[in-house]
Amino acid sequence: MAEPGLTRRRLLGGGAVAAGAAGLTWGTEHFARSGREPDPAAATEPFHGRHQSGVATAPQRHVTYLGFDLKPGVARADIIGLLQIWSGDAARLTQGEPGLADSEPELTVRPARLTVTIGFGPRLFTVAGVEAARPGWLRPLPAFTIDRLDPAYCDGDLLLQICADEATTVAHAVRALSRTVTSLVSVRWVQRGFRDAAPGQSMRNLFGQVDGTVNPAAGTTDFDRLIWHDGGGLPWLAGGTSLVLRRIAMNLDAWDDLDTGGRELSVGRRVATGAPLTGARESDDPDFTAVDQFGIPVIPPSSHIARAHHTGDTDRFLRRGYNYDESPAPGAVSNSGLLFAAYQADIESQYLPVQRRLAEFDALNTWTTPVGSAVFVLPPGITDPGGYIGQSLLES
Amino acid sequence: MAEPGLTRRRLLGGGAVAAGAAGLTWGTEHFARSGREPDPAAATEPFHGRHQSGVATAPQRHVTYLGFDLKPGVARADIIGLLQIWSGDAARLTQGEPGLADSEPELTVRPARLTVTIGFGPRLFTVAGVEAARPGWLRPLPAFTIDRLDPAYCDGDLLLQICADEATTVAHAVRALSRTVTSLVSVRWVQRGFRDAAPGQSMRNLFGQVDGTVNPAAGTTDFDRLIWHDGGGLPWLAGGTSLVLRRIAMNLDAWDDLDTGGRELSVGRRVATGAPLTGARESDDPDFTAVDQFGIPVIPPSSHIARAHHTGDTDRFLRRGYNYDESPAPGAVSNSGLLFAAYQADIESQYLPVQRRLAEFDALNTWTTPVGSAVFVLPPGITDPGGYIGQSLLES
Ligand code: HEM
Ligand code: HEM
Repeated sequence: MAEPGLTRRRLLGGGAVAAGAAGLTWGTEHFARSGREPDPAAATEPFHGRHQSGVATAPQRHVTYLGFDLKPGVARADIIGLLQIWSGDAARLTQGEPGLADSEPELTVRPARLTVTIGFGPRLFTVAGVEAARPGWLRPLPAFTIDRLDPAYCDGDLLLQICADEATTVAHAVRALSRTVTSLVSVRWVQRGFRDAAPGQSMRNLFGQVDGTVNPAAGTTDFDRLIWHDGGGLPWLAGGTSLVLRRIAMNLDAWDDLDTGGRELSVGRRVATGAPLTGARESDDPDFTAVDQFGIPVIPPSSHIARAHHTGDTDRFLRRGYNYDESPAPGAVSNSGLLFAAYQADIESQYLPVQRRLAEFDALNTWTTPVGSAVFVLPPGITDPGGYIGQSLLES
Repeated sequence: MAEPGLTRRRLLGGGAVAAGAAGLTWGTEHFARSGREPDPAAATEPFHGRHQSGVATAPQRHVTYLGFDLKPGVARADIIGLLQIWSGDAARLTQGEPGLADSEPELTVRPARLTVTIGFGPRLFTVAGVEAARPGWLRPLPAFTIDRLDPAYCDGDLLLQICADEATTVAHAVRALSRTVTSLVSVRWVQRGFRDAAPGQSMRNLFGQVDGTVNPAAGTTDFDRLIWHDGGGLPWLAGGTSLVLRRIAMNLDAWDDLDTGGRELSVGRRVATGAPLTGARESDDPDFTAVDQFGIPVIPPSSHIARAHHTGDTDRFLRRGYNYDESPAPGAVSNSGLLFAAYQADIESQYLPVQRRLAEFDALNTWTTPVGSAVFVLPPGITDPGGYIGQSLLES
């Protein structure tokens, strides 16, 4: 295994030459353009740590989610091999270093906050012979009457979530991580998304709504409790989490026919500011008990936030979704929606109560349709550079 | 027609409220986050001017090219109506204002250097009854033996080229401009691309190559002569240009099997720095006459740059392409390539000689395959806010 610094120097024909030509110099964590602002393309997110990156990480602008199927005949040892390759290459790529067998090392020098997050689907536990360690909640979501699922966007044995602030970085990482493992897995689906916001602000989705306001904040005890598994009953999962990835089509044509008032009643928040109908600022707490002069609730009980709001201290999770916008079907104008991504320590007790409430009734359902659904457990991070994601499961 | 400022205030529920909630204030051209750097998302490119924006404009990070077909029964007056709608909305959107019937005005406040560039395909001239004003060179490129064209990415009566530094801005502009004209045109194809580079630097394509080095520089007399039509023989086109859009698949699997030396000989430049094989820096002029100690040319005559290099003062144009990366076909790892976009005053005398040379022989052809091809004339810009793109053609 080549030392990354050496690999880069060899492949790029000398750091000094390459850096000189591009007007760049690089250090261990970042490079800066001489005499200017540090280049945001040089920023890195850690790969090693107690948790995988890409969950608590401030959302990057671009995502590609890849769902993989294990090929017939693949066994536990193969899965371990694959996870070793992915973990090693993810560690390198996220730090702006070429992957081990990287064929385009030039495309790694702008990490742009790249994160690579690895997940396991239900069937991996069967194939790897570790069924006893599978969380009970790791199974396809129950069918909901609102669903119009396309199998092309459902399920999968393995997940890669690849996020960065630059699309070129994502494209390269997707390829670097996919091409080395083609003998073991096949690509089941690819889902690409984007989000744009000023630093620290919420994004807007393609309905124009401020999206992501009510969310546990990274670094708080709430976040740690809700998102990271404490290992109870599943010691191997301590520090890990889970992902529910729902592809939700948004009917922009019908939404466009709705006026601002109708839009705000359907969600319970102002479109312009994201403030609850009972408040003035995005950060104001919604008051679900407030009524107008006629005694009618200001935030309709049928509205999305009234239905989605937690009813206790358990039915909460992190939403970290992305917009998608693909080529429209013949005759259509748009093919847009949300890659709705929810992270929680336990899908059953945290996610499902909310999803059931929304499936039962949610004013927003008129304009949204789930067309894809997949669930993954995201193993804890690793601190040992020689380790691999999933080690606590597969070597337990 | 509502005054844009009023429209925005009405729709966003008061500039001050909206701005306060988002932590933003806006002016006519840009807004800034209080006490911080100006937000790059606020930057605008002009819409009005002698030339359309999106050609000489420093390339933004994202593009969506849309090819449209005129529906049966559409006549010249309809085309004029459509171009009036597009011109008015493009003028607004590019300046961070909602389109006239914009249903998501909230998505317009981050213009992120949005440009909207309008083009006409050959058949528009027939339908509009202005065949006599059609440039002789505005017709599908001749068939080349290297081509494996998919009709799904070819031709079209009308073009929108929508570029911005944020994908959300592009997605909104695509929708805002498409949905108002569905009675007149249908979407023929959508092609999305991206490019990332430090300001003033060349991008890298997905082969890892520095791409776009040898290019006329905006603002030079060379650029003006090569790119902008001087109106000779076609007075309506003075200040306009043309676009050849080739979708070129790049076989990354095969490219990955090639070592650095082979890659550099195929193009004639270093992968790491983009310098010609006869030079040290990207900006060095290649010396096509240089030979090594055995008398062998240092830059192979079969290499891409040797074949593509202009042979006179005419066979030159602007390259302003984007990477694409789509979902792979079943069993494949990648579906990647270049949205190769060439701009020139005259396709016949400037573009075709180079394309013929490359089709005849180019070492790079081993790894690249044209899969789409379309040509458009891009009318001049307009300076009159009451005018519309194409006016000099359709009212002449
Ligand atoms: C395309 C589909 C969806 C859209 C457009 C959407 C949009 C929104 C918007 C605009 C808000 C208010 C701002 C915020 O707090 O983020 C919100 C809140 C929320 N949404 Fe959704 N959402 C969608 C699907 C879902 C789904 C599938 C779930 C869970 C199963 C969900 C759970 C929540 C929760 C928990 C909140 C916060 C409620 C509160 O406590 O105030 N949403 N959503
Ligand atoms: C996927 C296909 C292609 C790839 C990957 C590619 C890549 C490159 C690269 C790396 C360079 C050197 C750096 C630069 O000056 O930009 C270059 C130069 C050039 N390419 Fe391409 N190219 C492709 C297709 C084409 C096509 C279709 C044309 C025109 C028909 C073309 C015309 C040129 C020209 C004119 C130059 C500058 C040559 C010189 O004077 O040095 N390229 N290309």
